[in-house]
Amino acid sequence: MKLLRFGAAGAEKTGVLGSDGKVRDLSAHVADLSGDAVSVEALAKLRDLDIDALPVVEEPGRIGACLTRVPNFFCIGLNYALHAKESGMEPPKEPVVFNKATSALSGPFDDVIIPRKSSKADWEVELGVVIGKDTLYVSEEDALDHVAGYCTINDMSEREFQIERSGQWVKGKSAPTFAPIGPYLVTADEVADPQALRVTLDLNGETVQDSNTADMIFSVRQIVSHLSQFMKLVPGDIIATGTPSGVGMGMKPQRFLKPGDVMEIEVEGLGRQRQTAVAAE
Amino acid sequence: MKLLRFGAAGAEKTGVLGSDGKVRDLSAHVADLSGDAVSVEALAKLRDLDIDALPVVEEPGRIGACLTRVPNFFCIGLNYALHAKESGMEPPKEPVVFNKATSALSGPFDDVIIPRKSSKADWEVELGVVIGKDTLYVSEEDALDHVAGYCTINDMSEREFQIERSGQWVKGKSAPTFAPIGPYLVTADEVADPQALRVTLDLNGETVQDSNTADMIFSVRQIVSHLSQFMKLVPGDIIATGTPSGVGMGMKPQRFLKPGDVMEIEVEGLGRQRQTAVAAE
Repeated sequence: MKLLRFGAAGAEKTGVLGSDGKVRDLSAHVADLSGDAVSVEALAKLRDLDIDALPVVEEPGRIGACLTRVPNFFCIGLNYALHAKESGMEPPKEPVVFNKATSALSGPFDDVIIPRKSSKADWEVELGVVIGKDTLYVSEEDALDHVAGYCTINDMSEREFQIERSGQWVKGKSAPTFAPIGPYLVTADEVADPQALRVTLDLNGETVQDSNTADMIFSVRQIVSHLSQFMKLVPGDIIATGTPSGVGMGMKPQRFLKPGDVMEIEVEGLGRQRQTAVAAE
Repeated sequence: MKLLRFGAAGAEKTGVLGSDGKVRDLSAHVADLSGDAVSVEALAKLRDLDIDALPVVEEPGRIGACLTRVPNFFCIGLNYALHAKESGMEPPKEPVVFNKATSALSGPFDDVIIPRKSSKADWEVELGVVIGKDTLYVSEEDALDHVAGYCTINDMSEREFQIERSGQWVKGKSAPTFAPIGPYLVTADEVADPQALRVTLDLNGETVQDSNTADMIFSVRQIVSHLSQFMKLVPGDIIATGTPSGVGMGMKPQRFLKPGDVMEIEVEGLGRQRQTAVAAE
């Protein structure tokens, strides 16, 4: 299933793509896409629905973030060897973990707001993993059983805030609109192999990131298992699994977002995003 | 008001302390303590209630974490000069920010579980700040108007997970039960000056941390304003404002928690916690 949220920001309804590609109204069955509503168990029950019998939404309008009230938004850093190199860092020995503020969530076609005093706003296409079960001390072998689904993420980053201010990366990852996710939460059964997905990002029509999740240093299995040794993951948690090379910080000369720049972001099979950068008020 | 949650884990009800010190049942008025229910606006409305006319809970039993479904659990690192020194680090030029997984939340008297493969579990008494308004680009002058209240926090830490594993501190701050908060969410009107509160932690009856929030490098005003330059804080967010010297990592020789150790944690006016350390299953 390709689940989504549509409507005005803060008033989204739940939907699902029908076999004809039209949005069907899911709100009679799922109040919102968050927490236990996206558990592996809840999604299994949804599969019993006759989706093509649900009401068609002729004009869904705005598409929102594909999840809301996210308990934790974790990110994995430096998970592609070439990106670690362009960042001037060694490939890590084990997954580097940091957080985004959950208030950064944004729709896949909403404008991305360059924060006040920002000079180094940057893009990062990433495969997003959505957790579907309480997950503590899970083995790599069992880890994918804990995944509800996947989504496209733009892990927006402000490099001065991230790297040049006192400690820890969350400061540069958390501005409002710095986490466009979606358009779809694609359930895990529709992703045959999360390590075989092309990931691309076009900036103003020029492809600047083009890689494949096959090139990750740590696989989704390894990341989920690793995190679960340190904390309990819960349904609705998001893990952004790292970005490949081609970010603005790694270019020579470096290149950062300016108002009017357009990003198009895609993870194979999970849907395409498009955002225009605008200045903060 | 001193607001609290009581009852079995996952099935807590809301309560408030009456003028006689007894717990009063608040559940007819507040479904749970989280998000907009702890906004400055919602708390102002609660003040119109005649609290002493609410039903007395004769046997409240277990006291839960004083907040649930926390959107973000932020922590400030190295915010007392002596603690920075005992950690072998320079006092920071601006607040160091990192996250705890929100699944670490725990009741103030629940056992603290030492995680598997942990050898360096450590304690940290801290003043907790609870956000009560959407907060973006707020000035230091206005920052305290955005605070809903305060609580006692034990910012439990696993030093090997935090410092000796690849990057970023969240790995050592996030195990289940690593965030005992409460017993009370004390509304801001009852805290005359958040920079004049004694903070203490006793380990097996011996006082190992004893300081005052007057000694913070960055005040609550400064922290809230600073964070809001990088992200939007929202009602129900928690900020742990840093711990003073006296943690196990800073002792010579170092001393870490073992099963059976008892911690008693208090921030002046916000209530006392007591936890026993136990080994993970």
